[in-house]
Amino acid sequence: MTITHDHLLLELKKITDEKRVTENETILEHHSKDESHHTPVLPETVVFPVSSEEVSAILKFANTHKIPVVPFGVGSSLEGHAIPIKGGISIDFQFMNKVLEVRPEDFLVRVQPGVTRTELNQALKKYGLFFPVDPGADATIGGMAATNASGTTSVRYGIMRNQVRDLEVVLADGNTIHTGGLSAKSSSGYHLTSLFVGSEGTLGVFTEITLKVYGIPETIVAGRATFPSVKDAVDGAVSLLSAGIAIARVELVDEQSIELVNRHSKTDYPVRPTLFLEFHGNEQGVKQDISFAQELLDANHCEKLVFETDSLKRAKLWEARHNLAYAVKHSFPDKKMMITDVCLPISKLTDAIVYARHVIEESGLNGSAIGHVGDGNFHANLMFDKNDPEEVKKAYDINQKIVEFALERGGTCTGEHGIGIGKIKYLNKEHADTVPLMQMIKNQFDPNNILNPGKVLPEKL
Amino acid sequence: MTITHDHLLLELKKITDEKRVTENETILEHHSKDESHHTPVLPETVVFPVSSEEVSAILKFANTHKIPVVPFGVGSSLEGHAIPIKGGISIDFQFMNKVLEVRPEDFLVRVQPGVTRTELNQALKKYGLFFPVDPGADATIGGMAATNASGTTSVRYGIMRNQVRDLEVVLADGNTIHTGGLSAKSSSGYHLTSLFVGSEGTLGVFTEITLKVYGIPETIVAGRATFPSVKDAVDGAVSLLSAGIAIARVELVDEQSIELVNRHSKTDYPVRPTLFLEFHGNEQGVKQDISFAQELLDANHCEKLVFETDSLKRAKLWEARHNLAYAVKHSFPDKKMMITDVCLPISKLTDAIVYARHVIEESGLNGSAIGHVGDGNFHANLMFDKNDPEEVKKAYDINQKIVEFALERGGTCTGEHGIGIGKIKYLNKEHADTVPLMQMIKNQFDPNNILNPGKVLPEKL
Repeated sequence: MTITHDHLLLELKKITDEKRVTENETILEHHSKDESHHTPVLPETVVFPVSSEEVSAILKFANTHKIPVVPFGVGSSLEGHAIPIKGGISIDFQFMNKVLEVRPEDFLVRVQPGVTRTELNQALKKYGLFFPVDPGADATIGGMAATNASGTTSVRYGIMRNQVRDLEVVLADGNTIHTGGLSAKSSSGYHLTSLFVGSEGTLGVFTEITLKVYGIPETIVAGRATFPSVKDAVDGAVSLLSAGIAIARVELVDEQSIELVNRHSKTDYPVRPTLFLEFHGNEQGVKQDISFAQELLDANHCEKLVFETDSLKRAKLWEARHNLAYAVKHSFPDKKMMITDVCLPISKLTDAIVYARHVIEESGLNGSAIGHVGDGNFHANLMFDKNDPEEVKKAYDINQKIVEFALERGGTCTGEHGIGIGKIKYLNKEHADTVPLMQMIKNQFDPNNILNPGKVLPEKL
Repeated sequence: MTITHDHLLLELKKITDEKRVTENETILEHHSKDESHHTPVLPETVVFPVSSEEVSAILKFANTHKIPVVPFGVGSSLEGHAIPIKGGISIDFQFMNKVLEVRPEDFLVRVQPGVTRTELNQALKKYGLFFPVDPGADATIGGMAATNASGTTSVRYGIMRNQVRDLEVVLADGNTIHTGGLSAKSSSGYHLTSLFVGSEGTLGVFTEITLKVYGIPETIVAGRATFPSVKDAVDGAVSLLSAGIAIARVELVDEQSIELVNRHSKTDYPVRPTLFLEFHGNEQGVKQDISFAQELLDANHCEKLVFETDSLKRAKLWEARHNLAYAVKHSFPDKKMMITDVCLPISKLTDAIVYARHVIEESGLNGSAIGHVGDGNFHANLMFDKNDPEEVKKAYDINQKIVEFALERGGTCTGEHGIGIGKIKYLNKEHADTVPLMQMIKNQFDPNNILNPGKVLPEKL
């Protein structure tokens, strides 16, 4: 950084205005952290742009003076993405939250990065459309694109990378580009859209996002299936997938998690390993899917299968599932939460979850398992006392064991949360042979290393 | 190139063996061209590796001596990808054609690049699985990944980029990397798999490909719907998509094309603008889809809708569709064929096809229109006499007009064929702001410009 703090504020106020550049302590503190266990670091200042032009001017200025910039949505990241570990400018997108254009005939929507997924779905509803990607938290679309988020519905509709048609990106030097277009597919040059999606703010800052959207299915039926063991539940899920049932959601919630859900969401679900399911399709198709699913789950020792066709009860079910992370947190108010995020080939998933639960039990820490089993992705919520070095070590050790188990079987250290700060060492292990290529791209796109420095890749020396 | 021709042959024979390096004229000639209208250029030699290690040694050697290398599958490219326009080595993958591993539980298959899509489907059938991407030609999986191919089924199953989980890639310097893994999704670093898919041999050479595969649907029903006009047919297709019917194929074949199909494939389909359709799903779901589709097509002036549930008749229908390009070629044995390949947002498709047919008629050239209308992608097959400069100019002009029409509406110059030689100037237009980034990546990945030089990007000076 080549300028003084006062000069920094002055210049940012010139680019935006007096009121949209702040040093307010509460606001700095809010932008020092996300929902992860990683240690907060204050930014020097927070700026609230209202247009792509302002973002471009901010980056041009920051690049000239080698000042770190960190994009900030709602701070729901789970790997420290939004923490400005090198200080600098936190760019908050809360005023860039417009749904700019809906093209119902083209199944497309163009939004600013600060729109949250529920705001987007509200805007789409009147067209009979919806945006399926659902990571649980009410994250911004910008953040979801930056981390390549997915969640409960990707088994049917795919992940963020599959939905993004075009990105408006401000590059490190302030230049603004469009990476894609409006057509459903293209073979026109290198696919930079896919490179930027999941780049976690380290290659450019998104200022507009064009997404594929979907017609709301004619029929949606949700269900809960309980099993005598986690193994039976996962085997049941695998049997549905192997049979080719076009299931839209299939979530594992283990018995510890169900207990927390019941307490937090005032439900009375049986405290058993449970699959939360959802079927989408036309009426007749869903009927047939459900009756086939019933047979397959029965064969995997399903104790009870309850369906919710009523839209309120269905909403309640998914709300309970989505609030699970908060339920866990609130049950251990004095502890921090570390969430693991491995994803494996589906045939290895049962073993991986059984292994994870064994390692957690052995450690004596509290930790429950939930998972997007349709994708082979599961999370263990590890609760630890950050002031107890032994508990901290235990949590990190469990995470490492779970990651290593996955990597040895062709899996990934992060199915959907991203690398951020916490997984850099695992990225090095998982992609040892391609990290140098990633580093090459980073160095070319951001030679001054101002874009979310210290995330994804080990830093340049 | 820093060595003599004789030295080149000698070294390649040391790397492989005497018999797998050739100067045989017929073989050189076979590797001088593809199925495009672009002018053939002979390679210096053709080499037939049998392993990743051999490919690595070939590239290491070629890089040291700055010799161009061009990967070659079956030569079904339509934009000159396989033509060694700078001479050098054509690497033919016909001996690297093994299906290495099928993991039915994980819906994964690992193949060598020389496997063709029908060979792959043959190997998958006994597991109840299939690989959906179907560009018409019996292309190799390596070529399909290199061009990000798609075709008739991508409206339902997605394009090549959506199917590739992992690539083994030999880089320009001979180093071998893996870009992905076996899990259904990952947010682990920059997504290099998506960067290599569609890079047309200019960033690395694929030696193994791991693909997602699918369960063969319980019920498949194909159909033909005829309409009084192309506009009605496209509107009919759009109505199916807008209603959210999960159609697996929806292909437009115009009346000129039907006539050629009938002559070539000995069918007696009515000579009318026609949609070829296919529905995949469970029995009840497909029944409901079909009855809904019937209503929607009727409302768009469908004259007749005929279904083929019998698998032989269904195969005949798609064979006729797939042989269309050959049918056109054979009908004009003295002419060359130029195939346009634009893709647009679906709401602009009718206008684009009507415009294309108008421009073709005005020119006096022969040309029929077919399209993957579910994706907004269509092709005009333009027949021209390559020895008649006026006809050549007309064909190029039509192509340009069709591309410009698409680009002005947010479309792309190539939906699935790739840039190759023929579309570089349109890439420059479509992605003027990102071509410098692509060039940056190319220069870093292939500093000596040995990998399929002269394709995709304008050459380094």
